[in-house]
Amino acid sequence: MSKGQNEKYVIGVDLGGTKILAAAVSESGEIVGRAKKKTHADRPAEEILERLVAVCREAVEESKLTMDQICGVGIGSPGPLDPVKGMVIETPNLNLTKAPITDYVNRALGVPAFLDNDVNVGTFGEFVYGAGKGCRHLLGIFLGTGIGGGIIIDGKLLHGYSYNAGELGHIKVRAFGARCGCGDQGCLEAYASKTAMIKKFQKAVKKGKTTILTELIENKWDRLTSRVFRQAFDAKDKLVITELERAAKLTGVAVGSLLNILSPDKVVIGGGLMEALDKELLPIIQKYAKKNCFSMISKGVEIVPAALGDDAGILGAAAITWKRIRGEKVAV
Amino acid sequence: MSKGQNEKYVIGVDLGGTKILAAAVSESGEIVGRAKKKTHADRPAEEILERLVAVCREAVEESKLTMDQICGVGIGSPGPLDPVKGMVIETPNLNLTKAPITDYVNRALGVPAFLDNDVNVGTFGEFVYGAGKGCRHLLGIFLGTGIGGGIIIDGKLLHGYSYNAGELGHIKVRAFGARCGCGDQGCLEAYASKTAMIKKFQKAVKKGKTTILTELIENKWDRLTSRVFRQAFDAKDKLVITELERAAKLTGVAVGSLLNILSPDKVVIGGGLMEALDKELLPIIQKYAKKNCFSMISKGVEIVPAALGDDAGILGAAAITWKRIRGEKVAV
Repeated sequence: MSKGQNEKYVIGVDLGGTKILAAAVSESGEIVGRAKKKTHADRPAEEILERLVAVCREAVEESKLTMDQICGVGIGSPGPLDPVKGMVIETPNLNLTKAPITDYVNRALGVPAFLDNDVNVGTFGEFVYGAGKGCRHLLGIFLGTGIGGGIIIDGKLLHGYSYNAGELGHIKVRAFGARCGCGDQGCLEAYASKTAMIKKFQKAVKKGKTTILTELIENKWDRLTSRVFRQAFDAKDKLVITELERAAKLTGVAVGSLLNILSPDKVVIGGGLMEALDKELLPIIQKYAKKNCFSMISKGVEIVPAALGDDAGILGAAAITWKRIRGEKVAV
Repeated sequence: MSKGQNEKYVIGVDLGGTKILAAAVSESGEIVGRAKKKTHADRPAEEILERLVAVCREAVEESKLTMDQICGVGIGSPGPLDPVKGMVIETPNLNLTKAPITDYVNRALGVPAFLDNDVNVGTFGEFVYGAGKGCRHLLGIFLGTGIGGGIIIDGKLLHGYSYNAGELGHIKVRAFGARCGCGDQGCLEAYASKTAMIKKFQKAVKKGKTTILTELIENKWDRLTSRVFRQAFDAKDKLVITELERAAKLTGVAVGSLLNILSPDKVVIGGGLMEALDKELLPIIQKYAKKNCFSMISKGVEIVPAALGDDAGILGAAAITWKRIRGEKVAV
């Protein structure tokens, strides 16, 4: 791989509650070097931002580049945030309320910096470099601890009036149904997220139902990762299979609604749960999505697994940066 | 009003299953003359198109204009349709399958012609001349026999990949719930449209429930217009009040979901039912919409009644035409 001194790169950053990932990325989406640090999300904002900048510098070093080959930094962060002002508004588990992230990074590294929410960034990564390449209108849905989404319309991320459009986990699949973490009722996330399913398992165990889960996690529910879901599924655990199938069906119904509303070219589904169980979940999601929307709208529309895995964040942040420094609009 | 020979106008057409309305409209949205004919929707397509052109000519005459003052014709029609090819794909109750509407009108009148679906056109009318003036991202929802919707993103109608985005009546509010006319289950339209409510009333009456409706419509259910809903509501008919409140609540839940997905600046609600009962339905819709979405998304977002009534169609068709002949993009 050629990394001549004239070649330019950007840095894509995935700022999470537990770790900060950064990578130097070429315009064609090649990752030439990476770095990673713990976030220490409870420390003062200033300290988190210092660490973020340090990870960027490390990624440049790891890539054997110099800072003057870097023409911008893109950051994906949990929201809600203000992508125009470049600051997180507030976010659970990350002490960054109103921290001026892009200003800080810009001053520290001397290059333009851009911010968007992690799920938007992931969707944009899939759109530019991943499973959504070549689309005009794309939906990204990420199934994990929560359920996040991103909407791309005519090649641009939908921010909407509040900058917080795309809360696809909070589409109501059962009006006045299960209580959701967001405070409302009947959201997809209240049925099909890992958090929702774990709650259900806990209740079932309390009621005396048996499941291989208790053994696999040694009764420590925070050990119930997507990988454990997979193990329980493979062990034909009835409780887990029933719950996962229900989650997939309701996700399919929500995708059907979203097709009727937005009529995208393609739907990309990612997140930890999907990565662990795509062969099982995807056919159910596809079936119930098509069952729940107009055939003239679903015709020719593929519902596919995300392609970039954990790199969707850094690659999406890099893609946004490449477009922004060329003066292109990336969001509406 | 001055209609000098140099002044230019467009014609907005509302092509419905029972009647065709046309009006000559100035750029500022002033209607200077109107015409109306029965559609005779079961006649051959050629005959319907002839009548459509005749209504246009009549509107020009009524406006005391000459054809050379007309610079374009916009047509709103029931869908699904192909707005790019300018043809209806197929539509119940209107014998126009694959009829090349815009080509026909263009040849007959010698001016450019444009086509979009009636609800999109109505939403665009509200956006340019009505309750949604000045918005960037707008939702239009129309409650009547069915439930239709239109989505405006960054000033443009959302067509999507299939050209049929915005089927807001077919967002699922109860997964696997009531059977809808579209063949799917749990759609908003299956609960909150006039058609759905009439079905419920018929069932209730069969089961021996009493309602003032049977008296008001003399047992002829096709007489159950929005006006009769209003009368029954005013007479404090329990069955009708209960059903209408349920419809408004579920509409509110759907609007809440749509806010979380699209984050518009404003939501305009129109249609026959809303016109007859806006004071009663709107507060319930507003309350349940806000209850069912993130406060950071609903903050500052107004949910308001449509302003243009029956003129939304002709004015929206005119607005699309003005933009198109100026070379502006009206849809994505």
